[in-house]
Amino acid sequence: MLYEVFDILSLTKHERFSKHDRQAFDLVLETAEGIAKKFLRPFLKDGDRNPPQLLEGKVKVRPALHDYYHEFCRCGLLASTFDEESGGIQLPATVYAAADFIIGNGHNGFEMITSLSRGAAKLLDTFGSELVKETYLKKILAGEWAATMCLTEPHAGSALSNITTAAYPKEDGTFLIKGQKIFISGGDHDITENIVHLVLARISGAPPGVKGISLFAVPKKRVSPRDRILIDNDVRPLGLYHKMGQRSTPTMHLDFGGNADCIGHLVGSANTGLIGMFQMMNSFRLGVGLAGSYIATAAYYASLEYAHERQQGQRAGKKDLLEGQTSIINHPDVRRMLFLQKAIAEGTLSLIMQCNKYSDLESVSADDERERYRDLLELLTPVAKTYGAEMGTVSVNNGLQVLGGYGYTEDFILEQLARDIRVMSLYEGTTGIQSQALLARQIPAHDRKAFYLWIGEVKTVIVEAEAHKSLLFYSRWLDSEIKSLEETTGHMLAQKDVDPEIFLMDANLYMEFFGLVCIAWQWLKQGIFATSRLDKGDVGTDGTFYRSKLETMKFFFHYELRKTRGLQERLQDNTTLTIAGERELLI
Amino acid sequence: MLYEVFDILSLTKHERFSKHDRQAFDLVLETAEGIAKKFLRPFLKDGDRNPPQLLEGKVKVRPALHDYYHEFCRCGLLASTFDEESGGIQLPATVYAAADFIIGNGHNGFEMITSLSRGAAKLLDTFGSELVKETYLKKILAGEWAATMCLTEPHAGSALSNITTAAYPKEDGTFLIKGQKIFISGGDHDITENIVHLVLARISGAPPGVKGISLFAVPKKRVSPRDRILIDNDVRPLGLYHKMGQRSTPTMHLDFGGNADCIGHLVGSANTGLIGMFQMMNSFRLGVGLAGSYIATAAYYASLEYAHERQQGQRAGKKDLLEGQTSIINHPDVRRMLFLQKAIAEGTLSLIMQCNKYSDLESVSADDERERYRDLLELLTPVAKTYGAEMGTVSVNNGLQVLGGYGYTEDFILEQLARDIRVMSLYEGTTGIQSQALLARQIPAHDRKAFYLWIGEVKTVIVEAEAHKSLLFYSRWLDSEIKSLEETTGHMLAQKDVDPEIFLMDANLYMEFFGLVCIAWQWLKQGIFATSRLDKGDVGTDGTFYRSKLETMKFFFHYELRKTRGLQERLQDNTTLTIAGERELLI
Repeated sequence: MLYEVFDILSLTKHERFSKHDRQAFDLVLETAEGIAKKFLRPFLKDGDRNPPQLLEGKVKVRPALHDYYHEFCRCGLLASTFDEESGGIQLPATVYAAADFIIGNGHNGFEMITSLSRGAAKLLDTFGSELVKETYLKKILAGEWAATMCLTEPHAGSALSNITTAAYPKEDGTFLIKGQKIFISGGDHDITENIVHLVLARISGAPPGVKGISLFAVPKKRVSPRDRILIDNDVRPLGLYHKMGQRSTPTMHLDFGGNADCIGHLVGSANTGLIGMFQMMNSFRLGVGLAGSYIATAAYYASLEYAHERQQGQRAGKKDLLEGQTSIINHPDVRRMLFLQKAIAEGTLSLIMQCNKYSDLESVSADDERERYRDLLELLTPVAKTYGAEMGTVSVNNGLQVLGGYGYTEDFILEQLARDIRVMSLYEGTTGIQSQALLARQIPAHDRKAFYLWIGEVKTVIVEAEAHKSLLFYSRWLDSEIKSLEETTGHMLAQKDVDPEIFLMDANLYMEFFGLVCIAWQWLKQGIFATSRLDKGDVGTDGTFYRSKLETMKFFFHYELRKTRGLQERLQDNTTLTIAGERELLI
Repeated sequence: MLYEVFDILSLTKHERFSKHDRQAFDLVLETAEGIAKKFLRPFLKDGDRNPPQLLEGKVKVRPALHDYYHEFCRCGLLASTFDEESGGIQLPATVYAAADFIIGNGHNGFEMITSLSRGAAKLLDTFGSELVKETYLKKILAGEWAATMCLTEPHAGSALSNITTAAYPKEDGTFLIKGQKIFISGGDHDITENIVHLVLARISGAPPGVKGISLFAVPKKRVSPRDRILIDNDVRPLGLYHKMGQRSTPTMHLDFGGNADCIGHLVGSANTGLIGMFQMMNSFRLGVGLAGSYIATAAYYASLEYAHERQQGQRAGKKDLLEGQTSIINHPDVRRMLFLQKAIAEGTLSLIMQCNKYSDLESVSADDERERYRDLLELLTPVAKTYGAEMGTVSVNNGLQVLGGYGYTEDFILEQLARDIRVMSLYEGTTGIQSQALLARQIPAHDRKAFYLWIGEVKTVIVEAEAHKSLLFYSRWLDSEIKSLEETTGHMLAQKDVDPEIFLMDANLYMEFFGLVCIAWQWLKQGIFATSRLDKGDVGTDGTFYRSKLETMKFFFHYELRKTRGLQERLQDNTTLTIAGERELLI
């Protein structure tokens, strides 16, 4: 995917990435695999069975998480995508995503803790003052301090505009912070000596709503001005959530400034806190989509192995009791579930890679091109997040089903992965929120500019596919899906100014439709490379790899893409059944 | 549903049910609700957090499960559907199912333990000799002994034909049993002084395959012939499974006859063990479908309550920051999820009630009619099981999603219900197995006799609906779905003799199609009653109830039934992608 489908080496033509070559990229992937093998995979079940403990106001996590965190930083992965001047190696985001895929595939819980520090560091690097960078960023990049993001409050979850955490300016330019935050991943632990919380809060007197929200760096411990040692900064863990999955990492309820002694630094300018937070959120959203893929991939290989080993029944029409049983992988229904798992896992990965490629191109392009890539990235981010989360969950559950009753027991990893992945459609904005973002914001923006840019991208792939006779059937199919999506989009947008509530009522179904077409686009893209290589006949032992890709592409079209038919019908049917009326009909 | 949609009082015209009236039925439901309130609901979380323990070869379960078990038996629910001469009150199965719905809604784990005893007792009542009934049935019905069914072995799960547990005839007419059974629900516990295991085994010298399987009653402890006390019968718990959900009940790995001292009684005649077992399995399959409904219903009410209470955001197009937040039930996307939950939960319940009604009618009809009801029941049993299991899981997961991040925490019941219900598509034959049963056996049997009988049933409802102008749109819609299902069925059956593997490769998708049409049929049936009552204008305070039913019916058609479009296209597309070939393409 990296070197063929996304031709990642072409990025090295650009100044920013010019010091890299294939060998350098391979080394990054090998480093990730080394960490996964030694520090992650062996501890996947252990983390689930031994969740963090909150004892005497302090959170303890398993030693394995300490070891992983420090190794990840020691290897330079944390800072890898940063500018050289910030201590990074200017690694393309696409290559980092591939390494992240390997890490998360090894342990989806541990991955989150390093991702949080990395995302927070990126935010501080972009928006922080020199003082903030000097005080916090250096420590995070050195692996000495970890970081979190603190958005949600008990009464402000999806609706961030309602947050009430307060910041009172002090004379020295810092702020006194007061409020509570909930669902804080990595909100407390004993991995690092300190934790930097990036906290959304309102400066006293700020305007209501999202235009009055600022961002602060609030450490668990602050450096005392007098003797330069770390002293308590009045951040208290009030509780630790017990979760269905993702049990290896602490999710906290935190109190800031209960004793009126919690100091924070403003990050960026006052009342623009959401800009910085959304930069981080967008990168985390791609991370969640990627998580959908790497957890689904872990599940796929676990169930594939089981399906090869497990002997049960005979093939239909080939029954002979004296012949013994067959591997269940030979039963069409089991194969269907496995192909579905693979089609979702690798289709999602491809879409996430596509988004990261746009991000890399954005970072090296001049104005016009830059905007183009940014538009594409912003359009596709909620789609990649949601498809990975929702369909990743479907994929893992099919994996569990392959194992029959065994899949439901703790003897195999499937039941844990099913619990772990379930959170992805809630993290970083629920599926409902992502769908509203897509339909209400990204699609209509600038007269559907991004939408048509994206259609242009899909059409390019369709034209490329047409060069291969064997793909013509599929390229035409995708073309007709694009037409149907365009038509449906027009139909829905016509409602936008008539009644915004009706316009958005089925945003989730529109998202599902959009996601299916996106993944079909990515599979056709993969199919083109597979066909080219097979046609050239120089594939050697990789022939099976390419044939498997082609077969999975076909599977996606014949089995999954067909779901657009019902969605299109529903989305063009204006019957309103979900608009709240005077009389409550949900009883 | 009982008194209107399924007109259950009409059953009392028949001799078998003639002693009952509405008051008697209501009393049964009230008894169930009383048990649920006192013995079940308060212990739902507790059972999950404190699973059974296997200590020194013995399984201990929570005291609350003891209390419930004894209360259930004490109230006469265990024997209620049995003949009077067996100690029952000849309660219709439909009414019992309603009581069971209430029980399982209260605690889906505890429900299973009494259902197992009830199913086993039914089997012994039908197939057991006088000796077997005297020895085992009486004790079970008295609530003194519990029971299990033991089918699965380590290498014989979905393929029962491969079981190897052996039975050696002894001179006194009993058998020495030897073998291991896995996934035995309620396989050991301390609720009752004894447990009767119904074990599938092969009598030495029996033919291979399913035609050599016999059924045995094998007690945990047997009555010593000399002094009539209970002595050990060489049944050992080898292990207790740790499960994703359904954690309150023990699922065991059992060893029979490790010391060559395990005695069993043959139930029914030799080599016909599957007949009895399938009678029980079929009733359990309906039970699993019902579980899909009662767990989904518990989840629906939990998320409905949350959606009313939780304030978050403003309605689209009605934003005014100064006005405060709205209950999330007013957001169309949240309403969509709630309607989906309700449509699945109550649609499933209706289909299960329909099946139980056929069962009741079968028990009181003369030959021809009897066969007709049996055919309908057998056709619909795998569909009701599968729809309840698969879509119940979807329903609960939508409930979890309504709660956002809170849904993922142990603070609310949703995450537990999501884990509990996940097993339903594995219990009593996986979805794959049910789908094969439907397409390979039930549909083609006797020239699609049952299939056409069922179409006749659906058409009756369509004709009834046509009497109501407001339902005409939906009755025509269902009619067109029936045509499309008929056409698709014909298309698939044409493959039956050409290649049975291709014929069955997409049985699961056929099942999905069939299930959607079945639920639409049940919703239209409910819609007719709701419309009639509303048209008559005598609904009083029940108006909201009937309007809610109508709205949910419409929701099912507009949102769910549309999925048939893509399924039909796939099922009529002969592209084979899941047939095992010479070269393995799943890598």
